[in-house]
Amino acid sequence: MKKGDETRLMILQRAAEVFNRKGYSGASMADIMQATGLEKGGIYRHFDTKDDLALEAFDYAVSLVELEFQNALKDKRDAIDRLRAIVGVYRAMPGGMPVAGGCPVLNTAIEADDTHPLLRDHARRAMDEWREYMVRTITKGIERGQIRPQIDPEELTTFLIATLEGAIMLSKLYDDTRHMNRAVEYLDTYLETAVRL
Amino acid sequence: MKKGDETRLMILQRAAEVFNRKGYSGASMADIMQATGLEKGGIYRHFDTKDDLALEAFDYAVSLVELEFQNALKDKRDAIDRLRAIVGVYRAMPGGMPVAGGCPVLNTAIEADDTHPLLRDHARRAMDEWREYMVRTITKGIERGQIRPQIDPEELTTFLIATLEGAIMLSKLYDDTRHMNRAVEYLDTYLETAVRL
Repeated sequence: MKKGDETRLMILQRAAEVFNRKGYSGASMADIMQATGLEKGGIYRHFDTKDDLALEAFDYAVSLVELEFQNALKDKRDAIDRLRAIVGVYRAMPGGMPVAGGCPVLNTAIEADDTHPLLRDHARRAMDEWREYMVRTITKGIERGQIRPQIDPEELTTFLIATLEGAIMLSKLYDDTRHMNRAVEYLDTYLETAVRL
Repeated sequence: MKKGDETRLMILQRAAEVFNRKGYSGASMADIMQATGLEKGGIYRHFDTKDDLALEAFDYAVSLVELEFQNALKDKRDAIDRLRAIVGVYRAMPGGMPVAGGCPVLNTAIEADDTHPLLRDHARRAMDEWREYMVRTITKGIERGQIRPQIDPEELTTFLIATLEGAIMLSKLYDDTRHMNRAVEYLDTYLETAVRL
């Protein structure tokens, strides 16, 4: 890796955390300078505007979550086991894994929905990918006789993601993992008793 | 009501909406001036700082949601009917009822959890009240033989609130009520089949 590329990646890593904790409006270029140890010019050499940096940093944060999904899923074949593995990745998010500040899609969706169409579009695209991934997993599970055929993949996906994202909010609000743990227990029980065939 | 009190209330109403849509960091005093039609001095006559205004505007927004809860509950005696009425109030939130911008506690929790301890404390207090309200409803329902005794009131409350808040986020992210409607259907079915005695 070239020195310039290394610096660019370092900026993305640090900025992803700053934006995820403080929000797009709440994070200043001074915060990014402090987190990276670079002068303003050193940052603008790699990113034209704060917007460009925020959008790329968001996509970078999302890619870290997707890596977690891939790792959690790589030795799981059964559809319910796969869904529970995805639930397990969510469980770690209030604690700052893989990005400090919680779920980047949740944080960005809440901030951008009424204010920043470009950021909101990136959040939609990330959420689309997660949803499609879960819908595919559930559909395959039905085809393979692992999931009850009366389950609607889209509806179950919405229900799982809504519960997990809301639980991240609660656990971070109270700085208390209990809320997340309760949600995970509820969903695990639900998946085993009402979804598994 | 005195003229000064009327102006104060008008500022709170307009500011509550501006903060709920744009966030605390995202909303500027210029936004508040535009929404109220007042000069800076006219706002600072009633609120010492942007922080003071934001905290009172948040509490005001929360009180509007609590009024909706009270209205929805006033003719409901059965515990499951009461929980479903609360779910119904949440259902209207992505559409901007009673405050444009969605759920004020969700929005403020996400923004303030890592950045603004005072705002976060107000969000915690509001969420505490909502949770206590639901825990009481569920506990009474168990005592009156309307809810299964093996239900843990705290756990069910976390599960319901997490699912509803996450669904608000999804519906607002996509500007699509389907996500909220699916979550409500899931919860209604769950309450009738797995919670009602």
